[in-house]
Amino acid sequence: MWPKKTVQLLKQWEIIHPIIQAPMAGGITTPELISTVSETGAIGSIGAGYLTPGILEAEIQDVKRLTDKPYNVNLFITGEGKTDFTPPREIKEVLEKYAEELGIPFNVSDLNFPDFDEQFEVVIENKVPVFSFTFGFPEKKYIDELKRNKIKIIGTATSVREAVQLEEIGCDAVVAQGFEAGGHRGSFIYENGLPLVGSIALIPQIADKISIPVIASGAIMDGRGIIAALILGASAVQLGTAFLGCKEGNVNDRWLEGLFNSSDTTTDLTNAFTGKYARGLKNRFMDEMKQYESLIPEYPVQNQLTRDIRAKAREENNKDFMSYWAGQGSAMCKSTTSKELINSLVKECESVLSGLKTG
Amino acid sequence: MWPKKTVQLLKQWEIIHPIIQAPMAGGITTPELISTVSETGAIGSIGAGYLTPGILEAEIQDVKRLTDKPYNVNLFITGEGKTDFTPPREIKEVLEKYAEELGIPFNVSDLNFPDFDEQFEVVIENKVPVFSFTFGFPEKKYIDELKRNKIKIIGTATSVREAVQLEEIGCDAVVAQGFEAGGHRGSFIYENGLPLVGSIALIPQIADKISIPVIASGAIMDGRGIIAALILGASAVQLGTAFLGCKEGNVNDRWLEGLFNSSDTTTDLTNAFTGKYARGLKNRFMDEMKQYESLIPEYPVQNQLTRDIRAKAREENNKDFMSYWAGQGSAMCKSTTSKELINSLVKECESVLSGLKTG
Repeated sequence: MWPKKTVQLLKQWEIIHPIIQAPMAGGITTPELISTVSETGAIGSIGAGYLTPGILEAEIQDVKRLTDKPYNVNLFITGEGKTDFTPPREIKEVLEKYAEELGIPFNVSDLNFPDFDEQFEVVIENKVPVFSFTFGFPEKKYIDELKRNKIKIIGTATSVREAVQLEEIGCDAVVAQGFEAGGHRGSFIYENGLPLVGSIALIPQIADKISIPVIASGAIMDGRGIIAALILGASAVQLGTAFLGCKEGNVNDRWLEGLFNSSDTTTDLTNAFTGKYARGLKNRFMDEMKQYESLIPEYPVQNQLTRDIRAKAREENNKDFMSYWAGQGSAMCKSTTSKELINSLVKECESVLSGLKTG
Repeated sequence: MWPKKTVQLLKQWEIIHPIIQAPMAGGITTPELISTVSETGAIGSIGAGYLTPGILEAEIQDVKRLTDKPYNVNLFITGEGKTDFTPPREIKEVLEKYAEELGIPFNVSDLNFPDFDEQFEVVIENKVPVFSFTFGFPEKKYIDELKRNKIKIIGTATSVREAVQLEEIGCDAVVAQGFEAGGHRGSFIYENGLPLVGSIALIPQIADKISIPVIASGAIMDGRGIIAALILGASAVQLGTAFLGCKEGNVNDRWLEGLFNSSDTTTDLTNAFTGKYARGLKNRFMDEMKQYESLIPEYPVQNQLTRDIRAKAREENNKDFMSYWAGQGSAMCKSTTSKELINSLVKECESVLSGLKTG
């Protein structure tokens, strides 16, 4: 049923459906969700950017226990870690105030974050079937090691120039992340500022400039979105927000409520949570921090500074301070299971295509 | 060849191709371009927002002399005209500086702008086949008069809520203007700030909430974009940037050069030229005015204040001060004629669809 390019990819990657469950860092997915997605014939992803090597190892073991089908591990490429966690005075003051409101200490010590080399070693040792990355690309030695281990490599691009560079360094496929996408923007070339290109413009322009498969992401929520993306030039799609409604996930009630009550204009981009721009449902923290936008320290500093605030908010189901990542298709999110979701996506694709054939 | 919804629209509207040449105000299009588009079986549009009743009348006569096929006239709905053209001190100072650089006087008197009632009368008297509008919607008495004269009515929406309102007031179709679109954003409901929704999210969400036809716009540059939009839920498409490369148009060399040398990240949104946000190729004026963003007076004030600067820049092919409107598909713009463009768009659509049928 699929277009030729998609059929080729399915064969090469030994999967049944051209669908990747987007890596979502921060404990949103569970091994159960990830493995069910892979078991169904799509690709489940461990969003491991924030995970320590030990937790990543455990998560991979859990997934492998539940499926022998291909799965993906995603890491963040953030270069040499900044070690100075001293925030600007204004940021420190406002975060202290929020911490006080939540009844927790505001601590700028003990703000270490996982070491990429150690995370990467876990990826190699487990010979994970697919390895994807965000915020740039790893040096040649890492790419070589992935290739030696026959691990499929997926980079993340938010512009044509980024996609071309990811093909050059040896990626097997590129995620084309549209402006509409929820969560972090994977951008790493800022020649004209943060790239903010909508999928309908991004997918064909990337597809015209690279010869490796394009995986479209951003507000794809149903069969219409999938087939539209394939027509625009993608070989497969990556969905994040659509999986937030899956019962095997780890999304709290307030977040789900936010998604189900959202509209097309409810999300916004913010750097307030992590220091990198990401799209989420608007809330008090995003609104109030907007005025400090230019003062907010880069990732990972801001991420570590807001870590305890976000954790406490999530624990308490407090929507004011949670990072509720979501794409512009959030209002189309349904309460379902990952198996049901994938089955209905595939059925919708079949119906869109058969409608065109008789049309 | 077209999907069912599109076939219906073509029949009802008595056109051959589900393509509208977007109304582009400011003298970009010519009667020759507009009439050729209509003659080919698509719909040509007069972007009449800035036109005096006399010039609009002459333009309509020119188009009617060249074709008896349906064409569209677009007007701006900007409510009761502000008459206080006194700009904030900072804006006055910086615009005076630019005027001096261009060797022209900076004048804040004589800044009148066309009267909507007078423009509307020309539309009614000519019984134009299609009337579209931007930045809101006209009061009931105007809608009633359009209906009495059997004029088809198209509103412009940048969010689901706007689209629903446009259906309620009696539109026959709604343009769903994605974030990617060049030129002015047609927004008029700002509950979450300026709506900035990418087409892949906007089209299906609007199509699910209204029963009148959706016309997709924003970075649609070829057959892939058209078929993708139709699959997402549109019945037709509206293309602006694609028509900028047409020889019958009135786009100067610098603008064309800018389009042909652009990339997916070359455009940005700015309120600096007119007081309303619009997407265009980045240039010095946009960059330097960014710092005054929050001080810039609303349309039509800023539009009138920058009028002579833009006119002089355009006359002199000076890219620093021109409003080079363009969508995020600008790099896909080709030098062509409007007849060739429409023919190749339709052929591309056929080939996309036949590829799917054999796929």
